[in-house]
Amino acid sequence: RINGDRLWDSLMEMAKIGPGIAGGNNRQTLTDEDAEGRALFQTWCEDAGCTMGVDEIGNMFARREGTDPDALPVYVGSHLDTQPTGGKYDGVLGVLGGLEVIRSLNDLGIKTKHPIVVTNWTNEEGTRFAPAMLASGVFAGKHTLDWAYDRTDAKGKKFGDELERIGWKGPEKVGDRKMHAFFELHIEQGPILEAEGKDIGVVTHGQGLRWIECTVTGKESHTGSTPMHMRKNAGRGLALVTELVHEIAMKNQPNAVGAIGHIDVYPNSRNIIPGKVVFTVDMRTHLLDKLNGMVDEFMERAPKLCEEIGVEFDCHIVGQFDPPAFDEACVSAIRDAAERLGYSHMDIVSGAGHDACWINDVAPTAMVMCPCVDGLSHNEAEEISKEWATAGADVLFHAVVETAEI
Amino acid sequence: RINGDRLWDSLMEMAKIGPGIAGGNNRQTLTDEDAEGRALFQTWCEDAGCTMGVDEIGNMFARREGTDPDALPVYVGSHLDTQPTGGKYDGVLGVLGGLEVIRSLNDLGIKTKHPIVVTNWTNEEGTRFAPAMLASGVFAGKHTLDWAYDRTDAKGKKFGDELERIGWKGPEKVGDRKMHAFFELHIEQGPILEAEGKDIGVVTHGQGLRWIECTVTGKESHTGSTPMHMRKNAGRGLALVTELVHEIAMKNQPNAVGAIGHIDVYPNSRNIIPGKVVFTVDMRTHLLDKLNGMVDEFMERAPKLCEEIGVEFDCHIVGQFDPPAFDEACVSAIRDAAERLGYSHMDIVSGAGHDACWINDVAPTAMVMCPCVDGLSHNEAEEISKEWATAGADVLFHAVVETAEI
Ligand SMILES: NC(=O)NCCC(=O)O
Ligand SMILES: NC(=O)NCCC(=O)O
Repeated sequence: RINGDRLWDSLMEMAKIGPGIAGGNNRQTLTDEDAEGRALFQTWCEDAGCTMGVDEIGNMFARREGTDPDALPVYVGSHLDTQPTGGKYDGVLGVLGGLEVIRSLNDLGIKTKHPIVVTNWTNEEGTRFAPAMLASGVFAGKHTLDWAYDRTDAKGKKFGDELERIGWKGPEKVGDRKMHAFFELHIEQGPILEAEGKDIGVVTHGQGLRWIECTVTGKESHTGSTPMHMRKNAGRGLALVTELVHEIAMKNQPNAVGAIGHIDVYPNSRNIIPGKVVFTVDMRTHLLDKLNGMVDEFMERAPKLCEEIGVEFDCHIVGQFDPPAFDEACVSAIRDAAERLGYSHMDIVSGAGHDACWINDVAPTAMVMCPCVDGLSHNEAEEISKEWATAGADVLFHAVVETAEI
Repeated sequence: RINGDRLWDSLMEMAKIGPGIAGGNNRQTLTDEDAEGRALFQTWCEDAGCTMGVDEIGNMFARREGTDPDALPVYVGSHLDTQPTGGKYDGVLGVLGGLEVIRSLNDLGIKTKHPIVVTNWTNEEGTRFAPAMLASGVFAGKHTLDWAYDRTDAKGKKFGDELERIGWKGPEKVGDRKMHAFFELHIEQGPILEAEGKDIGVVTHGQGLRWIECTVTGKESHTGSTPMHMRKNAGRGLALVTELVHEIAMKNQPNAVGAIGHIDVYPNSRNIIPGKVVFTVDMRTHLLDKLNGMVDEFMERAPKLCEEIGVEFDCHIVGQFDPPAFDEACVSAIRDAAERLGYSHMDIVSGAGHDACWINDVAPTAMVMCPCVDGLSHNEAEEISKEWATAGADVLFHAVVETAEI
C-alpha cells in the first residue's frame, strides 16, 4: 500500500504554488507559477532517486531504473497545469500519485524489471493555449511541434516563446520515447462514482470532443440612435447559438454534452451594439457517429439562425479527439488491482479529455479514477477526500507494479 | 458664416491624437490620449484669445469676454473623449464647432453682449467609467462629485485618481457657473437626417435611458464531465435575457430600442461552463411611461427566465436619464438660424444621450444635429462630410450669436 498521508501532504504543498482566489489554484501552463510547480516536482523526483528528462515541448520524465536494461519503461502521470480558476487535484493527483508509486517502491525496497517513469505533460488544460492535451498530442504525433509552438494565448503570446521564457524547453525530441504501457490516475470530474458510492472508476472509454471556434459578425453601432430595423447585433447571434448547442446536446441524451465556455465580445462597450462575438462551442459524446452527427447539425443550423437575424456566422474546429477505447490488458490490471485491494469499483467512461486519450494511440494505456465531491471540477471548490486519493494511488501502484513486473 | 475648411482641419488635427485601428479614434476619458487632446484644445482656445477655466471634475471652460460685465455667458460645447473604437466626430464636432464660433467672431471683429464659453465635458461616453455624461451630470447636480470620483474602470482604477494622474483636476467647484443658455452641436448618430435629405436636425427632445447591469449566477463546472441535468449554465441566462431585451424593444415600436453591449463571462475558459456572466442592458425611448414600462417588464421577466433554467438573476440600474424636452426659445433660435441660412432642416428626437440632456435641467438648452453617413456612430468608420459639418457649425454660430446678442 502507498502512503496516503505523504501523498496528501505533497498535494497540499503543490497547491501553495499559484493559489487561486477561492481556495483552488491558478497555475496556468507556461506561467511563472507553472515553472515553480515544475521545479518543486523535479526536486521531489530527484530526492526519490530519479533522473529527470525534459523534451522540446516541456514534458517532464522522472525515471526510476529497472532491472532489465532492455525493458521499455512503464509510464505513469498526468499534468501539473491548472485552469485559471481550477482545483488542487485535477491533473496534480495523477502526477503526485505517480511520484508516490516510486516513493512507495523505495520504501519497500522493491525493484521492478521495467523502469518506471513519472511524467508531467505540458498544457493539458488548453485554456491559455488551445487545444487541450497539447503536448501529449504532439508526443502522440497528432500535432507537429512547430504548430504547437505557434499557438497563441489571448494576449498574442506564443506557446514556444513562453516555454522558453519559463526555462522548460528541454533537449529531447518529442515522442522519441517508447512505452511499455501508460497509466493515468485522475479525479472523475463528474458525479457518477460519488453517486454510486464507488471508490474506484475503471475507465474503459473516453468521450470524443470537438471544440468549434465561432465568429458572429454584425455591425458595431450606437445602442441609442440605431433604429431596431437597422441593427446587426452579433450578441443575438451568440444568444441563438447558445440555445442551439443546448438543444443539440439535449436531444442526443444520454451521454452527450454541449456548452459555450469562452466568449469575447467586441468592442464590449455598454452603448455599442456588439459588432463581433467570438466564442468556442464544446461538444462531446462517447460514440463517434453521434459526435459527428451533433457537429454536422450544428454546422448546418448555426449559420441559418444567424442569417435570419442579419448577422454572419463562421466557424472552424480548434480542438478535437475521437472517443478512445483503452487497452484491455491495462484496463484489466486496474480492475484486478481494485478487486485485490478490496476497493469498490465500476467501469466508467471519462467525460473529460486526458493525456491518456492521446497516449492510448502510441502505447497500451488505461486510467484509474477516484470520485470528487459533487462531481465538481474546473472550479476552485473542487474537493476530494484523502481516502479517495489514497485508494486511487493504491490501485495505480498495484497496476503499475504488476505491469512493470517484479 | 463660419470657416468650414478651418473647422475641418481642426477636426483632422484632433483625430491624430489617440488614433484607432480602423481610421477612427480611441481617446477614452482620462487616458494619456485624453490629456493630449485637452492640451491641444487649450492651446487653440488661448490662441483665439480665450482664458481657460477647469473645474474639479476636469470640465474645461474657454471664455471669450462679452461687453456687458453683468451678463451671464452663453455656453457652447460637447466632449472630446471617444469610445474605444469611436469615430472622429462624435463629441469633437461640438467642441471644435464651439471654438469655430469664437474664431469666426474674432475674424469678423464682432463683440457680443454676453460672454461666450466653449466647454469640453469630461467623460461623456461612459465606456471606461459608467455612467455616460458623468461630468455634465455632476455639473447639473445629478450625481455628487465624490460619487463620480469613486467610479471604477474595468481594471479597478478610480475616476478621481485617473483625473489627477492625467493632470486635469482643476480648482473650480463643479456646477458653480451660471449659464444664460447652452448649445450643443452633435452628429445625429442615427440614419434619419440622411434618409430625409436634411442638412440640419433641430433637436426638440431626447430619448430617456436606463442602463441595467445584470449578473447571472450559475455554477462553474467541467464542460465534459458534468451531465446536462446537473448544469447551471450562466451563459444560457445571458442568451435568454438577450432575446428578452430584443423582444421588449420590438413590441414597443416605434422609437424604442434595447440591446446588450457589454458582456463579461467568468471564468471564460473553453472547457468551463460559465459560472457567472455580468452584462449591461441599454433600453431607451422618448416617452417616460413607455420607458418605465419596458424596464418593469424586463425586471419581472428576466429573473423568471433564469429561474426556469436553474440560474440566478440579479440586476441594478447603473445609468439613467429621463427623456428631456429642450428649451423652446433655444430650439427656436436653432430653427430660425437654419431657416435664415437656407439649410434644409427638420425637428428630431435625439437617439443618444448628450451632455445637453443634463445641462437642460440647469440652463435653457438646445441641440443642433448634422447627418452622419449610414447613421453609423460608435464605430471607427463613423463619417460626415465637410459640408454637413459646415452647415451645423453655421447654424450653431447664428443661434449662439443671436442668443449672446451683439
Ligand atoms: N481533464 C481535463 O479537464 N482535461 C481538459 C480537457 C477537457 O476539456 O476535457
Ligand atoms: N452621444 C453619445 O454617444 N453619448 C453617450 C451616451 C449614450 O450612450 O447615449
